Amino acid sequence: MTDIEIAKGINLKPIGEIADSFGVSRDELELYGKYKAKLPLHLIDEEKVHRAKLILVSAISPTPAGEGKTTISIGLSQGLNRIGKKATVVLREPSLGPVFGIKGGATGGGYSQVLPMEDINLHFTGDFAAIEKAHNLLAAIIANNIQSKKNNIGLDPRTITWKRVMDMNDRSLRNIIVGLGGSSSGIPRESGFDITAASEVMAILCLASGLNDLKERLGNIFIGFTFDKKAIYARDLKANGAMAVLLKDAIKPNLVQTAEGTPAIIHGGPFANIAQGTNSVLATKMGLSYSEYVVTEAGFGFDLGAEKFLDIKCLSSGLSPHAVVLVATIRALKYHGKMPLADLKQPNLEALKAGFVNLEKHIENIKLFNICSVVAINRFVSDTDEEVDFLVDYCKHKGIQVSVADVWAKGGEGAIDLATKVVKTVELCNSRFIPLYDWEWTVEKKIETIAKKIYGAEAVDYTSKAKASLRKVYSLGLDKLPICMAKTQKSLSDNPELLGRPKDFIITVRDIEIAAGAGFIIPITGDIMRMPGLPEFPASESIDIDNDGNIIGLF
Amino acid sequence: MTDIEIAKGINLKPIGEIADSFGVSRDELELYGKYKAKLPLHLIDEEKVHRAKLILVSAISPTPAGEGKTTISIGLSQGLNRIGKKATVVLREPSLGPVFGIKGGATGGGYSQVLPMEDINLHFTGDFAAIEKAHNLLAAIIANNIQSKKNNIGLDPRTITWKRVMDMNDRSLRNIIVGLGGSSSGIPRESGFDITAASEVMAILCLASGLNDLKERLGNIFIGFTFDKKAIYARDLKANGAMAVLLKDAIKPNLVQTAEGTPAIIHGGPFANIAQGTNSVLATKMGLSYSEYVVTEAGFGFDLGAEKFLDIKCLSSGLSPHAVVLVATIRALKYHGKMPLADLKQPNLEALKAGFVNLEKHIENIKLFNICSVVAINRFVSDTDEEVDFLVDYCKHKGIQVSVADVWAKGGEGAIDLATKVVKTVELCNSRFIPLYDWEWTVEKKIETIAKKIYGAEAVDYTSKAKASLRKVYSLGLDKLPICMAKTQKSLSDNPELLGRPKDFIITVRDIEIAAGAGFIIPITGDIMRMPGLPEFPASESIDIDNDGNIIGLF
Repeated sequence: MTDIEIAKGINLKPIGEIADSFGVSRDELELYGKYKAKLPLHLIDEEKVHRAKLILVSAISPTPAGEGKTTISIGLSQGLNRIGKKATVVLREPSLGPVFGIKGGATGGGYSQVLPMEDINLHFTGDFAAIEKAHNLLAAIIANNIQSKKNNIGLDPRTITWKRVMDMNDRSLRNIIVGLGGSSSGIPRESGFDITAASEVMAILCLASGLNDLKERLGNIFIGFTFDKKAIYARDLKANGAMAVLLKDAIKPNLVQTAEGTPAIIHGGPFANIAQGTNSVLATKMGLSYSEYVVTEAGFGFDLGAEKFLDIKCLSSGLSPHAVVLVATIRALKYHGKMPLADLKQPNLEALKAGFVNLEKHIENIKLFNICSVVAINRFVSDTDEEVDFLVDYCKHKGIQVSVADVWAKGGEGAIDLATKVVKTVELCNSRFIPLYDWEWTVEKKIETIAKKIYGAEAVDYTSKAKASLRKVYSLGLDKLPICMAKTQKSLSDNPELLGRPKDFIITVRDIEIAAGAGFIIPITGDIMRMPGLPEFPASESIDIDNDGNIIGLF
Repeated sequence: MTDIEIAKGINLKPIGEIADSFGVSRDELELYGKYKAKLPLHLIDEEKVHRAKLILVSAISPTPAGEGKTTISIGLSQGLNRIGKKATVVLREPSLGPVFGIKGGATGGGYSQVLPMEDINLHFTGDFAAIEKAHNLLAAIIANNIQSKKNNIGLDPRTITWKRVMDMNDRSLRNIIVGLGGSSSGIPRESGFDITAASEVMAILCLASGLNDLKERLGNIFIGFTFDKKAIYARDLKANGAMAVLLKDAIKPNLVQTAEGTPAIIHGGPFANIAQGTNSVLATKMGLSYSEYVVTEAGFGFDLGAEKFLDIKCLSSGLSPHAVVLVATIRALKYHGKMPLADLKQPNLEALKAGFVNLEKHIENIKLFNICSVVAINRFVSDTDEEVDFLVDYCKHKGIQVSVADVWAKGGEGAIDLATKVVKTVELCNSRFIPLYDWEWTVEKKIETIAKKIYGAEAVDYTSKAKASLRKVYSLGLDKLPICMAKTQKSLSDNPELLGRPKDFIITVRDIEIAAGAGFIIPITGDIMRMPGLPEFPASESIDIDNDGNIIGLF
C-alpha cells in the first residue's frame, strides 16, 4: 500500500477531539476545516515548557533519499503514547514547490504519518503563502523606495541583497533582471527568486518568541548600504509592522494528528543549510506546554540540523533537549561504506561495518553537547535480519544504545522498544546540554570550533570573498551572532564525495551571508540550491482531481 | 468614526449562526477561524437558483474614488432583510497588494461592511494565494518544458504569452528577464508579473461550474506556438490536473457576514477591464440557492462590468438578473458636468445637471438588455439637500426610478426605501434579459455592437497589431467566444478625458488578447495597468500590530 492509500483508510478524528486529548479547550481552536486548527500563542505556558521532556530526532549523514527522521519522529510519539506517556510530535511544514517535481510529500509515511496529508503538503493553513507575501512586500517596498523622489533613503541598488521568494520549483526565476520597461516601471537591476523555505522571514518566524519579537527581528533584516555606506535595515523602510500584520496568523502553531490520533504540531519549515532547519520555537513550546514528551526533529544529519538546533534555537529560546534519537538506516551505512547507491538493496556486511564510522562520529558529536542518545535503526523491507543483527550487536559492542524501529509498517507498535529506551535514557541519564561554543567568541573561532569538533576538519580556509564579507560582519557589529553553517548534508566535510568519516580535510568558507533578522551569520561552504527546478518529467503531469475532489498522483 | 473603528464596535456572530440563518447545516461548513467558512459545492441547488431573484448593482462612469457599489450592495442586502426578504450579498474578494499602497480596503464601509474586514482584506481563506500558485505552476512547467531534452513539446519561447502573478503592488516586476545564469537555470527570455487579480486563472475560477469544468478551462489556456506553428495549450503540458488540485479549496465560496449579520458570500476577484470583473458563478449560485434575493455587483461602470456580467457570465452560466441598481453620486455627476475633482465638495446644480447625461446613457444601456432598473443615489456628507432634491426630481422628470440611500451611516435602515423599490420593480416590471449580441457573430460585429450601442461610438478602428491578433483568433478557431473589452472605466469612450456622454468618437482596438481558458477574447483599447506600483509614501509605513495582535493603520 502507498502512503496515500494508507492515509485514506484512516478515520480521522475531528480536531476538537485531538484538542481534548492534547489538553486545550475546543473554544481556543482557530479551525481550518475539520481536521486542522491554529493554536493561539497565549496557550503557551512557559513554566510547563521547562517541565516536559524534549526529544530531538536527528540522523547520520543521509543518502539522497533521507533516513526517515520524520517517520521515526511520528512513530516514536505514537510509541510513547502506547507506553503511557503523554507525547506530542512537533515538526516542520512541508514545502509545496517540490510536490510537483518529484512524487512524494514530507509528512512521514505508512502508519507513521501526519494527517490530512494532502492538505499539509499543499496550502495547509496558509503559513508559507503569508511568509512569501511578507518577504515580497519588503522587496516591493525596497524597489519602490529606490525610485522614490520624496521618500528616498539613498539605498545603493547595487548593494541590495534582498531577493524575492516563491514556493515553487522554478529554476528560471533564480537569476532575473527586474525593473525593465522604462522609468515608470522601476530601476533595472539583477535579482532573483528563492524558494519560500529559504526566506529569512521563514527563519525569523521560526525563532520569534511572539509578535513583538517577530517585528523586531523583521526590522533587523539587512537590506544593503546607502551610497555613502550607511547600513540600511528593514526598520529604516518602516516595513516590519506591515510584514508582521501579514504574519499575524502564520505565527500561530498548527494542530493536526498522526495516523494513530497523537497530537501533532506542524509549524514553519526553514532550510537546514542556510537556516536553522527545524520547526518554530513557538510550536516546540506549545507542544511542551501540554505534553510529558515532545518529539521533534532537525533537518539533515546531526552535523547540520541538530548542531543548529542546539547552538542557535535552544540557546536563543532557552530550550534544552533531554535526549537525542539518532536515526540510521542499513542502506545509508552501506553507502558510507562505499557501496554504490544502486546496489544498496544487496546485503553487504563489509560495507555496513565500514560505514559505521559515520554513525560513530555523530554519536561522538552528540556527546560534545553532553546529551544522551539512542540510535534508532529505521528498518526497511530490503534489510536482512543478518544485517540488522550485525548492526545491533556492533552498536552494543561499542557501548551505543540501539533500537530497531519499524514505524512505517507498524506505527507506534513498531516504536515501543525505542520509546521505552528513550524514556529510560531521559530518566536515568543526566543530560545537561552544554553548547558547543560561546556566541561572544570571534566569528573565526566559532566557525573553527564547528569545523574541527563537529566535522572533524583540520582547518578552515577563507576565500578572499569570504574575508571581505567577514569584514562586513564586523563592521556591522554582527559578529556576536551564532553561526549557521551552509554545508552539504551528504558528507561530514564540505565535499559531498567524502563519505564515511572523512579525515585530513579543510573546510573552505567561500562567502559569509548575513541573516541579521533571524539572528545568525551564514558561512557558505559550497553550492547551496535555493531555488530547485522541476525534473524532465515533473510529477505534475500525473496529478489529477475528479469532480468530487478526489486527488490522484500526488503521492 | 473610521470603518475599522465601526467594525471593532460590532459583535460578530459565530459563523455557525450565520449558516443557520442562511439555511445551511453547520456540519457542512469548512471553518476558517470563528467567522469565516467555505461552503462545499454540493450545497448548490440548481432548481432554487432559478427561483431566487438576482439584483445586479452597477454604476455610472465612476470618479477615481469609485461610487460605492460595494457599500450600496451590502446596505441593500441589509435593507431587504429589514423589509422581510431573505437576502444575501455576493461579492468579489479584495486584492491584498493595494492594501499596502493606499490606505483602505474593499469591504464596503461604515455600517455597510462585510466582516471580519481585516481578514477579508488580508489573506482571507487563501483563495488568491492558491490562484497565484496554480498560475505560477503553469509558468514553471512551461519554463521547464522549453529546456527539457526528453519531454520537450517544441514550444517557441518567443511566442509564450503566459507570465507570472503576485498579489502585490510591485512595479519592478512588470517587465523582467528570466532564465539568466547559465544553462542549468533556464532559457533567457522576456517575461513579467501581473497582479493576481489579473490572472486568467482567476477569471477561469470565477466562471467554472465545478471541478471538471475548471480543469477543462485550465486545459484550454493558450500558451503559444511550437516552432512549426502549432498552437499549444496548458492541456498539452498536462498541467491542468495539478493546477486544479491547487484550487480544490479555492473553488469553494466563502461565507462571512455583514455588519448587520446578513449572510455574505465573497468569492473570487477578477479585474473588470481585462476580465469579467465580478465574483464567481458558483458564489452567485450558492447565494441564490438559499435566498429570496441575492444582491451582487460588477466592477466599474455599467458599460464595463455589467455588460460583461450579462454577456459573458450570465450567458455562460444561465443566470439572469431581475433588476439592476445603478449607483450614482452627486460628486460623480458634477465631475461628468466638467467640475474639477478638487472642487466636487462645492454645491453646483449646473454641473450636476450637465453631468446627468452620463447617468442617462447608462440607463438607456440597461434597457438594451431589457432589464428594469432603480437608480441609487449614494449619499455623501458633502451633498446638499438642494442637490439631492434636484437630482431626485430630475430623475422623476425623466421617468427614472430613484432612491436616496445612506447606507454608510445608517446601514440597512438607510436602504429601506431602495429595498422597497427594488422589490416592487422585481415584482411589477417584467425583466426578461436579452443579451446584447450573439456569440456566433463575427468578432468584428460583436466588438462593433458593444462600441456603438453601449459606448455610443461612431465606429471601431483596428491597429495593424490588432488586425494581426484578430487573424490569430480566427486561425485558432476562437472567434465564437464572447468579447471582454479592456477599456478605461473613466469614460464611456476609450479616452479617459471624455466625460459625460461623449459623442462622435471612434474606439481604437490596439491589440486583441486571448483568454481561451476563461473563454473570452479581450480587445485592448488603452493602457491597462496589470501590475500597480506603490505610492511615494506607501500605507505600509504606518501599518503596525501590537503583541496581542491588534492592527493599526490598515484602514
